[in-house]
Amino acid sequence: MKPLEGVRVLDLTQAYSGPFCTMNLADHGAEVIKIERPGVGDQTRAWGPMLNHYSAYFGYINRNKKGITLDLRSEEGKEVFRDLLKTADVVTENYKVGTLEKLGFSYEEMKKINPGIIYGSISGFGLEGPLAKRPAYDIVAQAMSGMMSVTGFPDAPPTKIGPSIGDNYSGAYLCIGILMALYQRERTGEGQRLDVAMVDTLFSVMENFVMEYTVDGKIPHRAGNADPSIAPFDSFEAKDGGFVMGCGTDKMWASLCKIMGKEELIDDPSYVTNLKRCDNYGSTLKDIVESWSKEHEVAEIEELLAAEGIPFGNILNIKEAAEHPQLKGRNMLLSVFQPGAEEDMVMPGTPIKMHGKEDKIDKASPQLGEDNETILGELLGYSEEKISSLKENGVI
Amino acid sequence: MKPLEGVRVLDLTQAYSGPFCTMNLADHGAEVIKIERPGVGDQTRAWGPMLNHYSAYFGYINRNKKGITLDLRSEEGKEVFRDLLKTADVVTENYKVGTLEKLGFSYEEMKKINPGIIYGSISGFGLEGPLAKRPAYDIVAQAMSGMMSVTGFPDAPPTKIGPSIGDNYSGAYLCIGILMALYQRERTGEGQRLDVAMVDTLFSVMENFVMEYTVDGKIPHRAGNADPSIAPFDSFEAKDGGFVMGCGTDKMWASLCKIMGKEELIDDPSYVTNLKRCDNYGSTLKDIVESWSKEHEVAEIEELLAAEGIPFGNILNIKEAAEHPQLKGRNMLLSVFQPGAEEDMVMPGTPIKMHGKEDKIDKASPQLGEDNETILGELLGYSEEKISSLKENGVI
Repeated sequence: MKPLEGVRVLDLTQAYSGPFCTMNLADHGAEVIKIERPGVGDQTRAWGPMLNHYSAYFGYINRNKKGITLDLRSEEGKEVFRDLLKTADVVTENYKVGTLEKLGFSYEEMKKINPGIIYGSISGFGLEGPLAKRPAYDIVAQAMSGMMSVTGFPDAPPTKIGPSIGDNYSGAYLCIGILMALYQRERTGEGQRLDVAMVDTLFSVMENFVMEYTVDGKIPHRAGNADPSIAPFDSFEAKDGGFVMGCGTDKMWASLCKIMGKEELIDDPSYVTNLKRCDNYGSTLKDIVESWSKEHEVAEIEELLAAEGIPFGNILNIKEAAEHPQLKGRNMLLSVFQPGAEEDMVMPGTPIKMHGKEDKIDKASPQLGEDNETILGELLGYSEEKISSLKENGVI
Repeated sequence: MKPLEGVRVLDLTQAYSGPFCTMNLADHGAEVIKIERPGVGDQTRAWGPMLNHYSAYFGYINRNKKGITLDLRSEEGKEVFRDLLKTADVVTENYKVGTLEKLGFSYEEMKKINPGIIYGSISGFGLEGPLAKRPAYDIVAQAMSGMMSVTGFPDAPPTKIGPSIGDNYSGAYLCIGILMALYQRERTGEGQRLDVAMVDTLFSVMENFVMEYTVDGKIPHRAGNADPSIAPFDSFEAKDGGFVMGCGTDKMWASLCKIMGKEELIDDPSYVTNLKRCDNYGSTLKDIVESWSKEHEVAEIEELLAAEGIPFGNILNIKEAAEHPQLKGRNMLLSVFQPGAEEDMVMPGTPIKMHGKEDKIDKASPQLGEDNETILGELLGYSEEKISSLKENGVI
């Protein structure tokens, strides 16, 4: 049995942030019913890459979910949603702030229908405040949280993180909030209104950057790949490519000196403490390390550093990471047959590994309206006639 | 009442990843008992920035926690830990893989003492696999997950995300796992063994990058700040600084053309569809937008774009983000009086906003061994003599 079996989520989210939240719930057993606009569906159904004309973007983040269509703007559609709401534990949405309220489904209204409901929203800036009504993309959250200002090289522009971390991290945070609320409800019967913003989220994962400002009044800037407070701790060039390495202790530094054949540096006053190594990193130490590393191949350096317990990493591209035996062995690539594409789709697995639980994808993403009959018929007990009429009226 | 009140966590984690996980639990009501080495404590107690010689790095991520000292290598220390274990719901650790097992506390041993215990670990590579025993820093996870290969500019090196996202995101994922296990235990009585790896974590938040490889066989590379599949969607220069902006629809593009006074571009065959705009972005379209934006100030551009509903963001530094009325209004900076520093410490709040719950920090981080007497005396019922003897023997 998966931990969330029996939890029913009405998932009104689209694009990436919300679906990423509910993917994590579905991966671990929740019954996520994805609700999409009739005839149209989630915008990501049109986003590449495509596997036989079926979106792999959509397929990946909507695996393990059921899917129905529903027009929430129509009276009949609202009625169906009310019926669903009575059976649900959780509702999720990431519309423009206020949209669901305008449709008649504020938290207060939903509570009247289902007092224990847990209602979670993701937005760019949050449900209140001067910018609450503003639309946001991930890049907006990366810019306004300060994240871009501390990512990249000192002589280059503020840099965006490649994937949309502002989206998926706020999805992960809403997931945390929903799970906390589920736990509390199990003990008190109480529901919850949850509100996660993308800008808040990225601002809260800045490690000590915010503290440097609030405590020391410093404005942290981009430091490239080097750690400003530990040295050597950076990316380096080898004969045949790049690698990363960090010496977090004097012992590791001494081991590195021996590996480089430069034992005289261990007691050199310029490098004898971490503080000294940091002071002299940019001016001399980085060059010392690279004058050695550029003479050796990455595989050789890996072997030497690993033997001494110095943290080392290959700078892998996506193909190399996906094919790495460590990630493969951890089931971080899983395969599922995708109806609609009529082929296996290969996608990232869950990083939450649970002892004794099978680590696989139970079902592929739903085709548009795939579960209309089952959910409306079996779950809500609607007659075939009623379902047909809803279909004819364009409600589902 | 906060959602996790009554949940007791024995927190053996140190540095950033594990403490970030348990900070999220403590922020929402869990009783987190941080267990540190007598006389030494968490290594981050020495990490800057310092507020009156008290680490703000430590203070930030250990707020709302209790703290005791315990030498787990001594027989007496193991005995105390066994007594604590009987009272606990969750144990967390991020030692080198296998350390706690060597000390006699494998999951199987812990289950004998407390059958419902939830035991969560964070490591660089996970508990098994060819690299399981290797040490890792955040930069190693960023390199080996492929994250660095897709962050940064095409003509610049693979780029590390500023803050240690590999650490905090694996902490967030362990938090999700623990909450799922708590929910399941509430219904089945069953405990859980959880295993989260930093490399897995970052590999799982790549949006469609992994799918591009598994579906199309493409190896995604760095695209700077531009979105390769939407245009214009990038960072741009204005007269007095930079900003980000994205036109996700033809409607937004048309609005932008009007704002720029270039309505003739709306139907220009080179830019009439998103696909065309992407094709011609690097060669001409970016220059067209910047030839306009460089003539205007950021504040003016913000006003114009916001009025048309085009997502816009200022590229803020940490000071500007911390002082932004939106983030302030969301309680994303909170203050707590820190004993030891004898001054208020200002730090990021939680991004998980719960309707009707007070959004504040209940207590500051614990000084080393601050709660030894209370936890051992009141919780475990040890006599004053026993506690004194443990202290004399260096066990606490």
